[in-house]
Amino acid sequence: MGRFVYADNAATTNVSKSVFDSMVPYLTTHYGNPSSIYSVGRDAKKAIEVARQKVAAAIGAQPTEIYFTGCGTESDNWAIKSTAELLKQKGKNQIITTNFEHHAVLHTCEHLKKHGFEIIYLPVDSEGYVSAEQVKNAITDKTALVTIMYANNEIGTIQPIREIGAVCREAGVLFHTDAVQAVGHVNIDVAADNIDMLSLSGHKIHAPKGVGALYVRKGVRLVNFIDGGAQERNRRGGTENVASIVGLGTAIEEATKDIEARMAKIREKRDRIIDTILTTVPKCRLNGGRGKRLAGNVNISFEAVEGEALLLRLDMMGICGSSGSACTSGSLDPSHVLMAIGLPHEIAHGSLRLSINEDTTDEDVDYILECVPKVITTLRAMSPIWNG
Amino acid sequence: MGRFVYADNAATTNVSKSVFDSMVPYLTTHYGNPSSIYSVGRDAKKAIEVARQKVAAAIGAQPTEIYFTGCGTESDNWAIKSTAELLKQKGKNQIITTNFEHHAVLHTCEHLKKHGFEIIYLPVDSEGYVSAEQVKNAITDKTALVTIMYANNEIGTIQPIREIGAVCREAGVLFHTDAVQAVGHVNIDVAADNIDMLSLSGHKIHAPKGVGALYVRKGVRLVNFIDGGAQERNRRGGTENVASIVGLGTAIEEATKDIEARMAKIREKRDRIIDTILTTVPKCRLNGGRGKRLAGNVNISFEAVEGEALLLRLDMMGICGSSGSACTSGSLDPSHVLMAIGLPHEIAHGSLRLSINEDTTDEDVDYILECVPKVITTLRAMSPIWNG
Repeated sequence: MGRFVYADNAATTNVSKSVFDSMVPYLTTHYGNPSSIYSVGRDAKKAIEVARQKVAAAIGAQPTEIYFTGCGTESDNWAIKSTAELLKQKGKNQIITTNFEHHAVLHTCEHLKKHGFEIIYLPVDSEGYVSAEQVKNAITDKTALVTIMYANNEIGTIQPIREIGAVCREAGVLFHTDAVQAVGHVNIDVAADNIDMLSLSGHKIHAPKGVGALYVRKGVRLVNFIDGGAQERNRRGGTENVASIVGLGTAIEEATKDIEARMAKIREKRDRIIDTILTTVPKCRLNGGRGKRLAGNVNISFEAVEGEALLLRLDMMGICGSSGSACTSGSLDPSHVLMAIGLPHEIAHGSLRLSINEDTTDEDVDYILECVPKVITTLRAMSPIWNG
Repeated sequence: MGRFVYADNAATTNVSKSVFDSMVPYLTTHYGNPSSIYSVGRDAKKAIEVARQKVAAAIGAQPTEIYFTGCGTESDNWAIKSTAELLKQKGKNQIITTNFEHHAVLHTCEHLKKHGFEIIYLPVDSEGYVSAEQVKNAITDKTALVTIMYANNEIGTIQPIREIGAVCREAGVLFHTDAVQAVGHVNIDVAADNIDMLSLSGHKIHAPKGVGALYVRKGVRLVNFIDGGAQERNRRGGTENVASIVGLGTAIEEATKDIEARMAKIREKRDRIIDTILTTVPKCRLNGGRGKRLAGNVNISFEAVEGEALLLRLDMMGICGSSGSACTSGSLDPSHVLMAIGLPHEIAHGSLRLSINEDTTDEDVDYILECVPKVITTLRAMSPIWNG
């Protein structure tokens, strides 16, 4: 097999060796149920609490403010549905979000719409940003919750979370953020950022799939989402996913260490990809602003190119990328994110997201830059609509 | 360290070597997101579908009737809350269950009570059984759902599921069963058993913690519980827990193979434990009927013994057992299951559950039978209320 370049880290990441090694004991010898009182059970319980401390430390929270979940999507559902249920009783039936959230948030909001909620979808600008002022202007005395993602999963734009949080805090409205794409890429401090609830996921930061966490600020009320046993301080039933929780602890500690130096290196490689493609390939455009953008995110639309054909040809060359997000694949609709920033259907369809990380080498970048323009030329040569 | 006898398999099991080996590729090299269209993504997708076939085959279902979840508790929540939401719109606001279900079911029902549902708790008899006739007599035209566990987690009694299912089918009422303790111990055939929805969990059958499944019979309507991406045929958002799903597939295939021969061997050891303790230790009683009972379940109450002290002393001798269920530990209340079969508080408090499996050897049984009577004698000698 030739070169293999995995450039879809926004979809999922590999489990790092240190994460895997930290998990193995809990998949083999340390198999006790954390709720059991004998020693193999207590060992598992301790391991969970150490992981909880690591997750809390990574975002500036207290361990008692962290609840482990089965995935980032569960965390989003829990935060939003809990708040909706609690505040509907107080006559608040409005939720403010954006039109380019992850489906974990958008579909949860659509569910609540059926239960009498009004959902305000703030439009993002052509660069992929929403402003704190837009949030301020949208808040009414009916607002139960503002939920806005920390960084967009497709175009990587980082939102002014601290300012949005401040606006919410001042108005006395709860603020939730889906930070699944931001944790490990951006310095997050839930206190300074004025965040009341935050969702995160393990598999975006080299922990395994199937584990996430929800931060809930002390004092914020919460109704249970998964009712059951006494796990997670009576808040989330179900025997804890011990091995993966331990893995998440290891992963988040690594992902939030030396974040600026690590991101600077990734950003350099990302910029080389963006600059080279934009200057050498005709009729393409970068999606999402360049300033406040995840260090590893490249998202470029190519005129007269069909995204799926592009991905499959890159796959044959050993390059893994995506078009839109993994969570919506199988859909024939163009990305709602690219539509939100105003791209016409036909251009949105010909988009490529590459998400690189610290494992991406200069040679990987060279290879991407060798293959992508070549594939674009080939596809355009076959295209009935290309006349470049 | 001396002998170690893990006899708490109803709380959780070790991950078997074959399960672990089947998971490792998906925690290392095969890390693709199943929703991605490139080959490492497609490989992950294929692995999930193979696991789905195994789960389906194990309970006589079709693969399209199986949805993977984060745990058995999530499966219970999903089945019950979905049905409640759908049928409330048709004026049905009554749920029939028993008074000795797992908290995943009881607490979900309590949640629904706050949303206008009436919950009928059928009493179980002193042996720990509910009858199909009780169910039949309880059903009204307001009944939205009957949810009754396949086998009890504390006392191991196996309910007349097929007959209960037939009663429900005849009355046109949906029937859900929490089969977390039964899968891999009892032959289950969802069609013959007249089951509409069934919850199962991985970690009770040597798969890891943090993965479960919900069977939903074709034609039964379902509202999503975790809203999000297009995973699980648009039914359960969240990137799939690939490695654990693969592990569940391996585990359930092994757990349902030669089930009768395997259970016969375990039953023999269980009976030796029960018979020896009942005949050699004064003033104790077996909880739960002996006939239809999980092959590995021992649950005995000892007068004038405090359960926690008993467990801690057994732990020091290397024996892991439980008192009540792991999911409710930390609680000072006596087991609701033992209360349901009519035990007085003080006797329920002095109970020991041992749940053995195919790994339990004759020497392990000898050791249990050496230690348990000894500890009971010691504890009683120290007890102010013992005058035996």
